[in-house]
Amino acid sequence: MTGRQRQLKLGAFLYPTGHHIAAWRHPDAQADAGSNFAHYVELAQIAEAAKFDLIFMADGVGTRGADTEALHRTATRYVAQFEPITLLSALAAVTKNIGFVATASTSFNEPYHIARKFASLDHISGGRAGWNLVTSSSDHEAHNFGRDEHYAHAERYDRAEEFADVVRGLWDTWEEDSFPRDKESGIYFDPEKQHILNHRGKHFKVRGPLNVARAPQGHPVLVQAGSSDPGKELAARTAEVVFTAHQTIDDARAFYADLKGRLAKYGRARDDLKIMPGIFPVIGRTEAEAQEKFEQIQDLIHPVVGLSLLAGMSGGVDLSQYPIDGPVPDLPETNGGKSRQKLLLDLARRENLTIRQLYLRVAGARGHWQIVGTPVQIADQMEEWFKTGAADGFNVMPPHLPVGLYDFVEHVLPKLRRRGLFRSEYEGKTLRENLGLRVPQHPARAAVAAE
Amino acid sequence: MTGRQRQLKLGAFLYPTGHHIAAWRHPDAQADAGSNFAHYVELAQIAEAAKFDLIFMADGVGTRGADTEALHRTATRYVAQFEPITLLSALAAVTKNIGFVATASTSFNEPYHIARKFASLDHISGGRAGWNLVTSSSDHEAHNFGRDEHYAHAERYDRAEEFADVVRGLWDTWEEDSFPRDKESGIYFDPEKQHILNHRGKHFKVRGPLNVARAPQGHPVLVQAGSSDPGKELAARTAEVVFTAHQTIDDARAFYADLKGRLAKYGRARDDLKIMPGIFPVIGRTEAEAQEKFEQIQDLIHPVVGLSLLAGMSGGVDLSQYPIDGPVPDLPETNGGKSRQKLLLDLARRENLTIRQLYLRVAGARGHWQIVGTPVQIADQMEEWFKTGAADGFNVMPPHLPVGLYDFVEHVLPKLRRRGLFRSEYEGKTLRENLGLRVPQHPARAAVAAE
Repeated sequence: MTGRQRQLKLGAFLYPTGHHIAAWRHPDAQADAGSNFAHYVELAQIAEAAKFDLIFMADGVGTRGADTEALHRTATRYVAQFEPITLLSALAAVTKNIGFVATASTSFNEPYHIARKFASLDHISGGRAGWNLVTSSSDHEAHNFGRDEHYAHAERYDRAEEFADVVRGLWDTWEEDSFPRDKESGIYFDPEKQHILNHRGKHFKVRGPLNVARAPQGHPVLVQAGSSDPGKELAARTAEVVFTAHQTIDDARAFYADLKGRLAKYGRARDDLKIMPGIFPVIGRTEAEAQEKFEQIQDLIHPVVGLSLLAGMSGGVDLSQYPIDGPVPDLPETNGGKSRQKLLLDLARRENLTIRQLYLRVAGARGHWQIVGTPVQIADQMEEWFKTGAADGFNVMPPHLPVGLYDFVEHVLPKLRRRGLFRSEYEGKTLRENLGLRVPQHPARAAVAAE
Repeated sequence: MTGRQRQLKLGAFLYPTGHHIAAWRHPDAQADAGSNFAHYVELAQIAEAAKFDLIFMADGVGTRGADTEALHRTATRYVAQFEPITLLSALAAVTKNIGFVATASTSFNEPYHIARKFASLDHISGGRAGWNLVTSSSDHEAHNFGRDEHYAHAERYDRAEEFADVVRGLWDTWEEDSFPRDKESGIYFDPEKQHILNHRGKHFKVRGPLNVARAPQGHPVLVQAGSSDPGKELAARTAEVVFTAHQTIDDARAFYADLKGRLAKYGRARDDLKIMPGIFPVIGRTEAEAQEKFEQIQDLIHPVVGLSLLAGMSGGVDLSQYPIDGPVPDLPETNGGKSRQKLLLDLARRENLTIRQLYLRVAGARGHWQIVGTPVQIADQMEEWFKTGAADGFNVMPPHLPVGLYDFVEHVLPKLRRRGLFRSEYEGKTLRENLGLRVPQHPARAAVAAE
C-alpha cells in the first residue's frame, strides 16, 4: 500500500431484481431476474468494467417466511432465485478480474462440501472466490433440513467457529508446491506436502485430505456479517471482509472502531480486515429528482408486503387489523425480537408516523444506509465515511436492477475516481490482491519461517 | 422418434487426465488437469462441436483410498480435482448445446441442497443439467462427514430411494406457469401453483418449498449407475439414463434386457430410460498401431500403483511380498469383496498370468469395455452393441486427455455418422430433447389430465 493513496473497496451486492422490497415491480426492473442467467452476465460485466472488487450474493436455504399473502407479492425473500455458488461459478467463466463472494450457511452444511466448493471456485476463477460465512436464524430454513427450529444463537456460533476452523484446516491440506506431477519419475504429489487434518471436535469429525489442490489465493477470502458480540469475535479472529449495516455515520464509526480494536488480540493487523457497510443509493440529477425516484418505487409497496415487513422486523407483531393510515397502536409484547420491536415503536412515536409511513420508512434499505440524493452528495458522504473511520469501502445495494447499477457506475463512480478514491484499473489478478489482503501462508511454511 | 432412424447417445466421460490409471504420465496428457479450468473449456468445446449429448463427471467426496505409496503416484483417485457442480456450471456459461451430468452422492448430502443446485444449474444452462445419483461406499469419504464407516449397502439404498423422492418432490414445488410476475397487480407468484412438499420420512424431514423456479427441463435428467439388485430397482423406478460397465456384449445384453424389463411395473416405457455402457477406446490407424499405443500407456503403470489396483479390486489382498513377474499365489480369503477376488484369481489361473500381467490386464478400463483397434473396428462393435440390444449409446472414456477425445472425434465419429448412427446437428436445445426423453409433467397437471 506504501506510496499509494488508500482507496475504497467496492462490492456489487446483487439481489435478483434489486434491494428495494418492491424492486421487481419497477418498470425498469428485470422481473424474472431470479432465473435469468443473461441478466446476471450483464450485471457482472457492468460491475467488472467499472472495476468493482467483487460481486456479493446473499443466500437463504429456504424462503424467508411462510406468509403466502405477502410472499407471493415479493421477489426479495428467496422465493425463487439461483443458488449462489452455481451462479457465481458460471459468472467466473465469463469474466476475468472481478471477485465473487457467495454466502453459505454453517448451520445446514458440511464443512467438507463448503471447503471443496470454494476451493474449486477459486481454481475456476483463477483466485477470485470468497465465502460469506453466515449462520441461519430462520425456522423456515431449518424445516428443509430435518429440524423443527433453527439452532439457538450460542450453539449456532459455537458451530460456526468450529466450522470455520475445519474449512480453513482443509484448505491447508496442500502446500503451494505439493504437486510436482513429474511424468518421468511418476510422482504426482509429494506426500510430505500433504497435511491430513484429522479434526475431531464437538460438532464435526473430519479427517481430510481435501481433494482439491491448494487454492490460488491460498484461502478463498473469508467474509462475514455478524454484528452480535460472538459474531464480532468470530470476525475478528477469522474474517477478512466484514459487511455491515449502519444507518448513521456515528453507528458505523463505533462499529468500525470496536471491530478493528478486536484484531490485535488475535495477532492480526488492522488492515487484515476490511469493513464494508451496505449503501442503498437512490441517485438523481437533483435532490428533487432523486426523491421523486424514491417515491416512485416506494409507491409500489403493497400494504400487505409493508405490514409483513413490519411483522418480520418486530418479531411477529400483526398490524393488519388497524387502519393503515392511522397511528401505530400500543401493542402487547411478543416473544421474539423485543429490542427491534421497541426500536420500531420508538421511531413511530418520535416521528408521529402512521402504520403506512412506518413501513415506508424502513422498506428501502432494510437496515442499511439509505441515501437519496445527487451523485455529488452521495460521493461526499461516501468520502466522509471512508476518511473518518466508518468504512474501508462499501457494498453497493442498487434499489432495482440492472438500472440501479448503471446509475451508480455512470454517475457516482466517476466522482469517486476523480477524487482518487477509486481505482481505474485492477491492481492485481486475484480478489485478495485487489482488496489488498495478504495471502495466508501455509502453516508448515510459517513454522519453517519461525525456526 | 417416428420416421427417424434410432441414433446413438454419446457421453464424454471426463476424468481429469483421462481414464487410464497412468494417463497423467502420458507425454500428451494434461498432467495438471485437476485444477486447470482452461483444459476443461477445451474439452467441453471439442465435445460440443462433435455433438456429444453430454459431459459426464464422476465424483468422490474424499480421496479413493489412503495408501499414500500408491496414491501419490496417481491422478485418477480423486486426489485433487474440481468439484463437479462448480466445474460444470462454469462450463455451461461457455457452451450452448451440450448437456452436463454431475455426480453427487446421496450418502453425505442433504436433498434440499442437491435439488437446489441442480435446478439452478438447469436454469443457468438453459435446460442442460443432469444429476448422476450415487451412493458412497468408501470409508475414506465417510471419514470426512463425521462417520467412522460408510453406510451398509441396504441402508445406503434405502436412504437413496427416499433422497431421490425428496429431490423430485422439491423439483415439483412450482408448476411451469407459477410466476406471472405481473408488475401491474403486484402478483409475483400464484400461490395455487406453489406446492409445499411437507416430506416426513425415515431419513429426511423436508418441508419445502424449493426456492428455485421449476427447471427448464421440468426436472434435470436423472442418471444412475447402480448394478446391484436394489440399484437396478431404483434405476427402473427413477432413472432416465443408466451408465453401466460391461466387458462383453453378452453381459451388456443381459443387463439391458433385465433393466428394460423392470420398467413396465413402474408404468414406464422402455424408451424412458437410456442405457449407456462405458467404452474405453484405444484408437490406431492399424490394429498394430493401436496395440502399440496401448502398450505405451500400460508401460507407465508403476508396480506399486498396479498392486494397489489389485488390492482395491480384491478387497484388500496384498501381493507386494511376492515376485511381481512370478505367478499369482494362492491366497487366504479376505473379508471384503470375495466374488471380485475370485474373479481376479480365476482370470490369473485361466490365462496363466504373472502378478504384473494380471494388473496390466485390468488396469486400462477398470471394469469397462476396453477396445484396442482401428476406427472401423471400434465403430463396427459400437454398432453391433447398439443394434443388438446391448446399448442405447455409450459413455466414451478416453484413455488420456485431451488427445484421447480428439482421436475419438476425428476418427471414430465420422464413421458412425456416415452410417447414420450419430447426429450431425443437435435435435433440440435441452439435454432431454437431445436424449429423446420426455419432459416430466407436473403432478398437478397430470392429475388434471387424468380427470
